[in-house]
Amino acid sequence: MERIWTTDLSSHVGERVRLAGWLHRLRQLSGISFLILRDGKGLAQIVVDDPALVEQLAALHNEAVLVVEGHAVAEPQAPGGVEIHQPAIEVLSPASAPPFDLFRPTLKAQLPMVLDHAALTLRHPRRRALFRLASASMAGFRRTLRAMDFVEIQTPKIVASATESGANVFTIDYFGAPAYLAQSPQLYKQIMVGVFERVFEVGPVFRAEPHDTPRHLNEYASLDVELGFIRDHTTVMDMVTRVVGGMVAALYADAADAVALLGVALPEVPARIPAVHFAEAQELILKETGEDVRGEQDLAPAHERWLGEWAHNVHGSEFVFVVGYPMAKRPFYTHPEPERPEFSNSFDLLFRGLELVTGGQRLHRYEDYLAALQARGLAPEPLAGYLEAFKYGMPPHGGFAMGLERWVAQLVGAANIRETTLFPRDLHRLTP
Amino acid sequence: MERIWTTDLSSHVGERVRLAGWLHRLRQLSGISFLILRDGKGLAQIVVDDPALVEQLAALHNEAVLVVEGHAVAEPQAPGGVEIHQPAIEVLSPASAPPFDLFRPTLKAQLPMVLDHAALTLRHPRRRALFRLASASMAGFRRTLRAMDFVEIQTPKIVASATESGANVFTIDYFGAPAYLAQSPQLYKQIMVGVFERVFEVGPVFRAEPHDTPRHLNEYASLDVELGFIRDHTTVMDMVTRVVGGMVAALYADAADAVALLGVALPEVPARIPAVHFAEAQELILKETGEDVRGEQDLAPAHERWLGEWAHNVHGSEFVFVVGYPMAKRPFYTHPEPERPEFSNSFDLLFRGLELVTGGQRLHRYEDYLAALQARGLAPEPLAGYLEAFKYGMPPHGGFAMGLERWVAQLVGAANIRETTLFPRDLHRLTP
Repeated sequence: MERIWTTDLSSHVGERVRLAGWLHRLRQLSGISFLILRDGKGLAQIVVDDPALVEQLAALHNEAVLVVEGHAVAEPQAPGGVEIHQPAIEVLSPASAPPFDLFRPTLKAQLPMVLDHAALTLRHPRRRALFRLASASMAGFRRTLRAMDFVEIQTPKIVASATESGANVFTIDYFGAPAYLAQSPQLYKQIMVGVFERVFEVGPVFRAEPHDTPRHLNEYASLDVELGFIRDHTTVMDMVTRVVGGMVAALYADAADAVALLGVALPEVPARIPAVHFAEAQELILKETGEDVRGEQDLAPAHERWLGEWAHNVHGSEFVFVVGYPMAKRPFYTHPEPERPEFSNSFDLLFRGLELVTGGQRLHRYEDYLAALQARGLAPEPLAGYLEAFKYGMPPHGGFAMGLERWVAQLVGAANIRETTLFPRDLHRLTP
Repeated sequence: MERIWTTDLSSHVGERVRLAGWLHRLRQLSGISFLILRDGKGLAQIVVDDPALVEQLAALHNEAVLVVEGHAVAEPQAPGGVEIHQPAIEVLSPASAPPFDLFRPTLKAQLPMVLDHAALTLRHPRRRALFRLASASMAGFRRTLRAMDFVEIQTPKIVASATESGANVFTIDYFGAPAYLAQSPQLYKQIMVGVFERVFEVGPVFRAEPHDTPRHLNEYASLDVELGFIRDHTTVMDMVTRVVGGMVAALYADAADAVALLGVALPEVPARIPAVHFAEAQELILKETGEDVRGEQDLAPAHERWLGEWAHNVHGSEFVFVVGYPMAKRPFYTHPEPERPEFSNSFDLLFRGLELVTGGQRLHRYEDYLAALQARGLAPEPLAGYLEAFKYGMPPHGGFAMGLERWVAQLVGAANIRETTLFPRDLHRLTP
């Protein structure tokens, strides 16, 4: 008999079915027992009234792997409205006694313990629902971009020079010579605009920043986009709006059960996300909070949160673009604002008061690159293979990047980004 | 006016249109000139009869970036059956004189030169068509798996121990302590079978093998799959067959123009790919070629090629599974063949005589892992976070991995895998 998923039980009522999964819980009552079986998608309740079978099951630890055959019977009280009667049960694999109860509504353990025992704790229905959100978001990201003629690329993570920005990079021993782990696919995706005009990549990025905060990881999944023939950064902002909209749509379409289980309130993505200029934002902060941050080159996390609330109150949006960050804090390839060159044609997208996306227009003229590098005291030689793209004709272009784990963390309101990372890497954590 | 793609011109005949792209070629004839414009998707022919405009264009180098407005006119002689008349042309970006002619049918340069100048040479229509094949293959891979309830995951590339196999690993300086680049997501995808049962990942893998061959890269894109509740390795082989079939279908659906441009003969994927046992293959080789390779623990490339020809001649298939490789050459997590434990429940899929996929059934019992590690003299402690998955109940499971660049190389008959890698990394190459 073909095995079916627990989540398909309702279309098999009245039939004999075969399920497979993990012993999630055995509830022994006086006359009857209930076996809860967990498979890769959901849970099923199995009624066990044979005392010998109850005894056999009671001898197993939770997480033993079982195959269950039985009759699917409609039962409004059961989870999913169906339960299994008259089961025949085969034990595929035994299990040791787990140190956590996976059947409780939430895991009763501190985060370091949860992460140390990821192989077990990721099986908790709420833990795994987070990563269903991640998977559906990636699918929505790709679908939206492919529908707009973007080509998916894979660019190298081992790179020869660490020149993109001041952020620290990890050093590799590359056959005896030093090499580095890419902080982003930035330079490669720009080169590829010269090839396909529109490209995207989903891949790991590496930041050797010795931060120990709930918002930072040393390795994360970056969703990267770059496109040519833009008007300016506003074309890129329109693209961000569509892509985030496509990601939310995919959560509805592909992960509705995970969204429901976690009780996530999915955001509405406005057709036009409100935007505020960096300088304006500083004036607003002064006017509304009395804090004078004019002259600062960046926004502090507290001010990002404040702007998030402001956008929500004034514009009814959980998203807000901050546009025109000072050039001083942006990387060398950033395009300045034509009228006020101390500001840039770049932006951050704040989602619920946290930076989710960074993007903007890039320089596209070879001479502009030479000047920008010189102004920062950077040598052009290590970047020769990149600069060649601009030497041989590049259109106005721009792009953006979003951290997948941060997106999911903001969606569910996770206090720590490690909660939405399968196997996080930080200053103190390299395993599992 | 909204800009359109050159490939959409045929549905705009009789209209005034706006195109944008690169100056691919200017053909100056006595009375008339033809400008070939290349955009991210294709080419368009623009008729230029205004001598002043011809002069202006002749002063530009190829690869200058242009915006062209003009009338789309049906012209059977023109590429795509449409050409542009009465153009108005705006130069967006100039270009230096390229060292290669991108308009010739093939690039006239040796591979190292092609790779050194990737930012330019990837723009050649044949070069970029290769990476359209890669993008479409990835899309087909994901679509096929998602339709069968597989969940996409992202696992860490920085790992604490280098224990999967004897293959060399790259060492990273991780905040002063040594860490390694992952050779594969193997251990993580197995852990995730305990969570979702069916998972896949597309991501970079890193091999520090000092090989300098046309078949090896030190970093490549691996398409990884793992699934639970299998019968044995044959369930995995069925899955490989479906996935490869889905990838070929995606090439027809998403990259037909690239397939046509490259003249690729797409393979037919049989409903049942022929399979031959490793021991049987050795007997066959002896019988048919006179070469006695019995007792060898692996197949040499020449014998893989021979088996590919044999499968083609005898079974009419460009694919053939070789099953049951000796345990001695397979990694510790490999499941032995129950009746002949010197062989394994593992397989390679040969495509046109080259190993394309490696996969098999894995061990799933905790005790079996402890025994397998001990037999190989490996300590279990560094693998504690992985072994926990088996301690707490794992079903029979298996999976496979395929190298994306190798797949494309075999599809198009590339002599060197570097040809189908955007920015290859090898012993001697770290840039661009």
